[in-house]
Amino acid sequence: MVEQALQTNDPPGPTSGILSQPPSAQTAPWTPHTVLSTLPDPPAPHTSSPLPFLHVLSRLKTTKREGWRRFGIAHGESIADHMYRMSILTMLAPASLASRLNIPRCTQMALVHDMAESLVGDITPVDGVLKAEKSRRETATMSYLCGDLLGKVGGGVAGEEMRAVWQEYEDGETLEARFVHDVDKMELLLQMMEYERAAQGTLDLGEFAWVATRIELPEVRAWCEELLKERDEFWRGVGRTTGGGQEVGAEKEAQHVEYYGNGNATNGA
Amino acid sequence: MVEQALQTNDPPGPTSGILSQPPSAQTAPWTPHTVLSTLPDPPAPHTSSPLPFLHVLSRLKTTKREGWRRFGIAHGESIADHMYRMSILTMLAPASLASRLNIPRCTQMALVHDMAESLVGDITPVDGVLKAEKSRRETATMSYLCGDLLGKVGGGVAGEEMRAVWQEYEDGETLEARFVHDVDKMELLLQMMEYERAAQGTLDLGEFAWVATRIELPEVRAWCEELLKERDEFWRGVGRTTGGGQEVGAEKEAQHVEYYGNGNATNGA
Repeated sequence: MVEQALQTNDPPGPTSGILSQPPSAQTAPWTPHTVLSTLPDPPAPHTSSPLPFLHVLSRLKTTKREGWRRFGIAHGESIADHMYRMSILTMLAPASLASRLNIPRCTQMALVHDMAESLVGDITPVDGVLKAEKSRRETATMSYLCGDLLGKVGGGVAGEEMRAVWQEYEDGETLEARFVHDVDKMELLLQMMEYERAAQGTLDLGEFAWVATRIELPEVRAWCEELLKERDEFWRGVGRTTGGGQEVGAEKEAQHVEYYGNGNATNGA
Repeated sequence: MVEQALQTNDPPGPTSGILSQPPSAQTAPWTPHTVLSTLPDPPAPHTSSPLPFLHVLSRLKTTKREGWRRFGIAHGESIADHMYRMSILTMLAPASLASRLNIPRCTQMALVHDMAESLVGDITPVDGVLKAEKSRRETATMSYLCGDLLGKVGGGVAGEEMRAVWQEYEDGETLEARFVHDVDKMELLLQMMEYERAAQGTLDLGEFAWVATRIELPEVRAWCEELLKERDEFWRGVGRTTGGGQEVGAEKEAQHVEYYGNGNATNGA
């Protein structure tokens, strides 16, 4: 646990979170043990204790969201920070949506959906890892977390439930999953706008604004439109008519579609 | 929003999170507006939009847990990080507890219980703010967040629910509230142990281990005893028989009881 916990207290190094080699150059396919074998105190599997699982989850606090790091935000939000505000967003679903949703399940889904990043890391479109490979790593990690680490904890019930709610999110078919996919994008856009405002016009994160076009449900689109209006006003206030970046090149657009979904939210961020 | 969002990208200043004056020296009693009036972009109250509320909540990501900061952990966990892992802990309640609990309500309570710290900050026993004053500030902040900011959002339903679940936690009477109080302490102890392990024996956070004695429910005590055993093994491994600090002076003990409860968990952390 030493390495990742220390990250909390040190600025990220120049290669933090960057895959050192493209997947094809790696000697063996990635498995959870690729990461686990580097830990000074690897978690003990197959015990009746939840502690090994909980220690692995500490990495969600210390691993920063990669998108912001690329823009020089060294001490930005953690993966846990992101899921935290997503969980609160699920509690704010307007009545037209809430009446059709199992809200506690949405909250749980928001809290579980990026859990695999505790070992996989926050892979983003620019990392050169194919969507299918990212998905394979996350599936393997959820099996490890919910099976190897939680399988004997309380008869494995909690682990099975987390695994199921994660799969539901990945499948993106239920209304709950579609809502949480939208909430994932909405939370990203809120944070984008807040980092821009904090930088008083010196930082343009418009590259991420494109995600707004992939929000599906009208209720979340309404929130999003309001946010983008707020953002336009901010940029006008600092003397620019737009923060720019809502137009991206064809290549980048293809990468984003790959990661942020095709409009039906079946390939989630 | 500029000031607090920038905190994310800068190391905390020497006076970050420290009350500049004892309460008695302040010219007027603290209200949420004491903080709001310092913000470059104060949130607009009484709108039908959830955005002002969500922007205030961004401060839970950027405000660090004060206890660790005092020990030189500058980029430690955020308040949101802490509530995140607490929410996962609620999903792991053993069957003997889970069968008597409304687990989704516990999850929601974990996510809401420190929400007032978005404006109040993370006041700890050493700050010299009396428990009653801390409680008054938090109550005022929850009224502001759930009333002024959420009162007209979706008819105010979500705000009322958050306010109610927060009050239930504060009252500490239901089994759900008692469980979440215990989970609050358990999460702190996990993080304590992880910071100690990360520092490889150079950092003794035993001052916090005392909190373990205030855990009430046998199921959470069992987790805790296992964790303290793990901690003892760690300290033995680095050549000390104990991390120490489980004994604290009478004055500090009184401060801790004031903040971390009297054993019935009616005065929560």
